[in-house]
Amino acid sequence: MRFLKGHGTGNDFVVLPDPDGALTLTPELARSLCDRRFGIGADGVLRVVRTARADTGLDAEQAGRAEWFMDHHNADGSTAEMCGNGIRLYARYLAGAGLAPPGSHVIATRGGLRTVTIPVGGGDVTVDMGPPVPAPARGTATGTTQTATLGGTRVRGVAVSMGNPHLVCAVEDVRSFDLTAPLTVSDEAFPDGVNLEIFEWTSHEVPPSPPAGDPLSVRGSVRMRVLERGVGETLSCGTGACAVAVVALDRPGSALEVDVPGGRLVVTWTDSTLLLRGPAQIVAEGTWCGVVT
Amino acid sequence: MRFLKGHGTGNDFVVLPDPDGALTLTPELARSLCDRRFGIGADGVLRVVRTARADTGLDAEQAGRAEWFMDHHNADGSTAEMCGNGIRLYARYLAGAGLAPPGSHVIATRGGLRTVTIPVGGGDVTVDMGPPVPAPARGTATGTTQTATLGGTRVRGVAVSMGNPHLVCAVEDVRSFDLTAPLTVSDEAFPDGVNLEIFEWTSHEVPPSPPAGDPLSVRGSVRMRVLERGVGETLSCGTGACAVAVVALDRPGSALEVDVPGGRLVVTWTDSTLLLRGPAQIVAEGTWCGVVT
Repeated sequence: MRFLKGHGTGNDFVVLPDPDGALTLTPELARSLCDRRFGIGADGVLRVVRTARADTGLDAEQAGRAEWFMDHHNADGSTAEMCGNGIRLYARYLAGAGLAPPGSHVIATRGGLRTVTIPVGGGDVTVDMGPPVPAPARGTATGTTQTATLGGTRVRGVAVSMGNPHLVCAVEDVRSFDLTAPLTVSDEAFPDGVNLEIFEWTSHEVPPSPPAGDPLSVRGSVRMRVLERGVGETLSCGTGACAVAVVALDRPGSALEVDVPGGRLVVTWTDSTLLLRGPAQIVAEGTWCGVVT
Repeated sequence: MRFLKGHGTGNDFVVLPDPDGALTLTPELARSLCDRRFGIGADGVLRVVRTARADTGLDAEQAGRAEWFMDHHNADGSTAEMCGNGIRLYARYLAGAGLAPPGSHVIATRGGLRTVTIPVGGGDVTVDMGPPVPAPARGTATGTTQTATLGGTRVRGVAVSMGNPHLVCAVEDVRSFDLTAPLTVSDEAFPDGVNLEIFEWTSHEVPPSPPAGDPLSVRGSVRMRVLERGVGETLSCGTGACAVAVVALDRPGSALEVDVPGGRLVVTWTDSTLLLRGPAQIVAEGTWCGVVT
């Protein structure tokens, strides 16, 4: 079985080229591929399959707008909806394999359609993550102040829904926090749990409002760490970086450099959406000859 | 750069075929390959190079007895001497690539020469680990009772030197121990630190002495866990399994099944040496195209 391995800011994936949908990606196979000792090792699997050959769960109108479907499975074998770092790697693979033109195109995911952009000649990959969700179906409205307890310490932050729930906390020093400590949140505010982000400003450019005449310029840099729901601290989180940008920038019209442990992301908040830009790299390709366990 | 990935009972390695010694395996390259998020990911790198083309550190007489040298680097970039699981995978690669005949042959390592055996037709790989060292240059003689403290609890065991130091403790239930707790040992007994093994018998065949007439038969099975010096709990440890066999069997002349978290090893204690047998498997091969960081 042919595979590639790569990462977006340290979030790593096994990419399985399967254009005609010949492969049955069972939970066991996904787990075996992602096993870091007995398999190749990754956070998840991205099967690259034509939308017309996949069971996407999308309606025909949506499915008809994207040639490629990102069939995303987590390392535990479950299916996943969308991942800002995964789709950037997926787009990098498509471009490198000549399966998609440089520039912008639409990729289908279980979470809907996403537009990705790779500059002609390569470079960072941008994905349109959609705007923050003002009032999610369950839990707390974006912008609401909430608290949580991290290892006995009360932390205060702002709730942001990016489809999934986030609690974003501005702190003095992100390195001083122990993110292995247990996180407890209010069931009422976060009935489905929460991803916790802590961030600090690292540049001095923190104007109170966007510079006039250049609304989408970078307004500053933050360093963030993220405690992903059900996973623990990770090197990067695309929706988490977007949530931090929403809180740090406070309103649309500019961009933020977000340094995650796995590298640098840039989030641009336009009037209509959040654009997540960052590196994505294929590091190996080959043939898997292991066993499914 | 061509690579393979594989494991022996869950101890995993990037194998780099480099028969003519054309490759410069720097610490940075080893670290980049072994990085589990940004690289391929492994516990170490095994460069496969002809002894005649390598800087082995062995004397000419020894080096002349082995065609192949196992150039073993840890994930942190440091060089390593010998690894019972690594050399079994190395031998599997040689056999699969047609670079060594089935049966027994000698491989050079920084720790000296080791004889490996693969049955014609495949199957488990055996490596001659050498006998326990009765009186190591530093620290405690093999067979001496010693104690240590694991997270506030005193554990009592038997010191065994397999070149590296071990403290082997027979316990009731290996699963009841927290091997993330800090281990403290006496500096006098273990001046270079120690690998801690805990084991319990799992079969009922625990005869007080080897069965007559069949001295190398399996006498029973144990389940073990290991806390590797400087690493933490691991899925497998070849010298640790040998050390457990020395304590559990008490004298040469029989064999022991040793279940480690990563699979089953069999240790046979002959009059002259310890033979470590177990599975070793290549799971992927391909080309690395990542960057050295």
